[in-house]
Amino acid sequence: MRRLYHQPLSPFCRKIRLVLGEKKIEVELVEEKPWEKRMDYLRQNPSGKVPMLKIDDLTLAESPAIFEYLEEVYPDPPLLPKGAAERAEARRLASWFDDKFHHEVTVNLLYERVNKRLARSGHPESARIKEGARNIKYHLDYIGWLMEGRRWLAGDQLSIADFSAAAQLSSLDYIGDVDWSRNQSLKDWYAKVKSRPAFRSVLADLLPGFQPPSHYADLDF
Amino acid sequence: MRRLYHQPLSPFCRKIRLVLGEKKIEVELVEEKPWEKRMDYLRQNPSGKVPMLKIDDLTLAESPAIFEYLEEVYPDPPLLPKGAAERAEARRLASWFDDKFHHEVTVNLLYERVNKRLARSGHPESARIKEGARNIKYHLDYIGWLMEGRRWLAGDQLSIADFSAAAQLSSLDYIGDVDWSRNQSLKDWYAKVKSRPAFRSVLADLLPGFQPPSHYADLDF
Repeated sequence: MRRLYHQPLSPFCRKIRLVLGEKKIEVELVEEKPWEKRMDYLRQNPSGKVPMLKIDDLTLAESPAIFEYLEEVYPDPPLLPKGAAERAEARRLASWFDDKFHHEVTVNLLYERVNKRLARSGHPESARIKEGARNIKYHLDYIGWLMEGRRWLAGDQLSIADFSAAAQLSSLDYIGDVDWSRNQSLKDWYAKVKSRPAFRSVLADLLPGFQPPSHYADLDF
Repeated sequence: MRRLYHQPLSPFCRKIRLVLGEKKIEVELVEEKPWEKRMDYLRQNPSGKVPMLKIDDLTLAESPAIFEYLEEVYPDPPLLPKGAAERAEARRLASWFDDKFHHEVTVNLLYERVNKRLARSGHPESARIKEGARNIKYHLDYIGWLMEGRRWLAGDQLSIADFSAAAQLSSLDYIGDVDWSRNQSLKDWYAKVKSRPAFRSVLADLLPGFQPPSHYADLDF
C-alpha cells in the first residue's frame, strides 16, 4: 500500500501531492504531526519532517529526493523538461521556492500563525509576520515578471517549478496571506496551476480551527 | 571561460567545488560578496546567493540544480548511484545537510560568527551559537551511526551526500566548531572525504581575519 505521511498545510507535502496527482499515482494519506516526535515515525525518518512516502517497498524522505525518485520511476507525464539547460532552470526555481521563499516568507507567516498554534509552541511574533509580509511582495513580483515571457514558470511546459511555487503559495493563501491583486500575470499563472485536477484534493483539505478565505478553493478567484 | 562565483566559507560553494574537482572540470573562481547586493550579479542571479556557475554558455544557480546539471552533462565519475532507490538515499542525505543541518547548525554557528562580521550586520547572538553547538551533536552522531554500516554516507560509493555533508562540516571546522573526538566512525569518514584530491583547493582557501585551527587542513587530524 502506498502511503504519504503529511500535514495538510505543509507546502512540501502539497508539492509531493501535486506531483503524485499529476502522475496519477494513488496514495493513502496519513496525517503525521511532526511536533509530536513519534518514535515510530522518527525510526523510519530520522529527520522527523513531513512528507514521507512509502512506495515500492521503500521509505522515501526529503521532498526534492522524493520528487526525483517519482520522476525517474514514474516518468509520465514528465515534470522536468527534456534539455539539461531547461531542467536546470526548472530545478533552480524549485529550489528558489523550497528554500529562499520558504525561509523568507512561509516560515515567517505560516509557521508563526499556524504551526506555533498547532504545536502549542508560543505566540506569533509580529516582527516576523511583518518581515514575511514585506518579503512576499518581491517574490510575487518575480513570478509575475517570469510569467510575462513564459507559458509556465520554468518555460514552455508545466514542471516541478510550478508545483513548488504553487504549493508554498496555496498554503499561505489558506490563511489569506497572498495579495493576488498585486500582479495580473501572477494571478493568471496561479489560476492555471490551480485548475490542474491534481490540485483538487489539496484545496479540499480543511484544518480544524482555521477557516480559509472564500476565494481559496475557487478556480475563478 | 567557466567561472564559479563563490564565497570561501559558503558550504554550498564548497559542495559545488568538490563536485567540479571530482569530475575534473576546471573553473576560474571569482569571489562574490552576496551582502554587497551588486546589481550586475543580481541581474544574472536574482536570488543573490552564491554559488553561481557559468558553464556551456549558461548561467546556473541554486546548488542542487547546479549539481544535477553537472551530473547529467558531465557524468564521469558519477556522484549518484545507479539504482533509483540508492539515488533517492543519496539525495535524501544531500537535502538533510543542505537544509536541516544548514538551518539547525551552520546558520547558528558560521553565520553568527563569520557572516555577520563580514557583512557588518551586527554581533553574534550567544543564544544562537548555543543552539547551533547543541544541535551539531546529534548530526555528528547520525553520521557516525550511518557510517557504522556503510562505506560512504549513502551506501557503497562516494556520492553527493558525502560532499554535501563534508562541505557544511569543513566550513564549521574552519572556525573550530566540530568536535571530531565525539565519534570515531565520523572522524574516519571525514578523513576519507578530506583526502580526495578535490578537497585540496577548498582547504587551501584562507579568509582574512579568521585563522583556522592547526588540524584544519591536516589529512591526519
